[in-house]
Amino acid sequence: MKKFAVVLAGCGVYDGAEIHEATLSLYAIMKYGATYEIFAPDIQQFHVVNHITGEEMPETRNVLVESARIARGKIQPLSAFKESDFDALLFPGGFGVAKNLCNFAFEGANAGILPEVKDAIVSMNEAGKPIGALCISPALLALTLDDVDITIGSDSGTIEALEKLGAHHIETTHGEVVHDKNSNVFTTPCYMLDANILEIAAGAENIVKSMLDSLE
Amino acid sequence: MKKFAVVLAGCGVYDGAEIHEATLSLYAIMKYGATYEIFAPDIQQFHVVNHITGEEMPETRNVLVESARIARGKIQPLSAFKESDFDALLFPGGFGVAKNLCNFAFEGANAGILPEVKDAIVSMNEAGKPIGALCISPALLALTLDDVDITIGSDSGTIEALEKLGAHHIETTHGEVVHDKNSNVFTTPCYMLDANILEIAAGAENIVKSMLDSLE
Repeated sequence: MKKFAVVLAGCGVYDGAEIHEATLSLYAIMKYGATYEIFAPDIQQFHVVNHITGEEMPETRNVLVESARIARGKIQPLSAFKESDFDALLFPGGFGVAKNLCNFAFEGANAGILPEVKDAIVSMNEAGKPIGALCISPALLALTLDDVDITIGSDSGTIEALEKLGAHHIETTHGEVVHDKNSNVFTTPCYMLDANILEIAAGAENIVKSMLDSLE
Repeated sequence: MKKFAVVLAGCGVYDGAEIHEATLSLYAIMKYGATYEIFAPDIQQFHVVNHITGEEMPETRNVLVESARIARGKIQPLSAFKESDFDALLFPGGFGVAKNLCNFAFEGANAGILPEVKDAIVSMNEAGKPIGALCISPALLALTLDDVDITIGSDSGTIEALEKLGAHHIETTHGEVVHDKNSNVFTTPCYMLDANILEIAAGAENIVKSMLDSLE
């Protein structure tokens, strides 16, 4: 049975992992006969956002502890991730990816990336294993790998920043998956488009199925 | 198009709404051609639980604000719920249901229920509209309606408390739905059993489909 490592960035679209993308990714992995373990970095969130008002809240929360809400407690610190234990690596989206796993949300093409996130991507990439990224998570691939073909949908400002990082962007719509065969990375736009939950499920299922097909 | 009101109890299995059940319920509603609006009470959570350690955290969080993480901000206070706007009412599970919407987790057969939750159930029930409840949420129905047939799976302590409330419990396993035709309520056990995410999806899809079939 093929095993995915799924990396979360908190719990909630505006400061963490996008909950529908994360949940429907886990569902897709099991639906197509694979299994998963869940990881997140043991760091403070960049900030906490009230998801009704969009305003910052005067709180601090931990990315690993909040991600555990999606994982129902079955989660490990990303520092414990070992490439040899997994067949594939998957990053659901959410602003937390661009605020906690890297700072692309604030710095765009000048962004830095958390070393343990970069290490996970580099180790899987050097082993030739598939890496998938939903929504804004392809920014992690653009920050780590050279000349990578990715999609985040069609948002021109984001595309410009990603291309400054040396990535090649391919416009897509709901549920479409871009596979860069050279780097063996898979990307799909999900909520980077104005999507509903059926379209998120389609994106998650298509990317997981494409990654599993590549492993056959 | 049929419209569901979905009531959440926070964000996270141990102190709020169970995230997989909530997300997969929303997905099932759209998959079967219906639509939804999301509600939660504007109250403080009973407590905040670290989902890795299971320990209480020295924080306060609001049920409506945290539920908005699952709803991506599109949520209304439960006090704004009007029976006439909806065809069906659905409660995903999670300990938050038994800690925030009522106090069944602590008081069992002596539990009280939040008045606005009771009002929503009573108004839909008096209108003859279907009410669905996943996981531990059938406790809300046992606390509100008389002589109701429900299932929470097979946990004997929980069953005993529900029967003391006057409910009649029917044992079920993964994905099974109990329909009390008299009260027009639908229940399914989900994570009240030791389930995986595929089984949660099956439970959510089966209960939503059963509710929609009853509306035809």
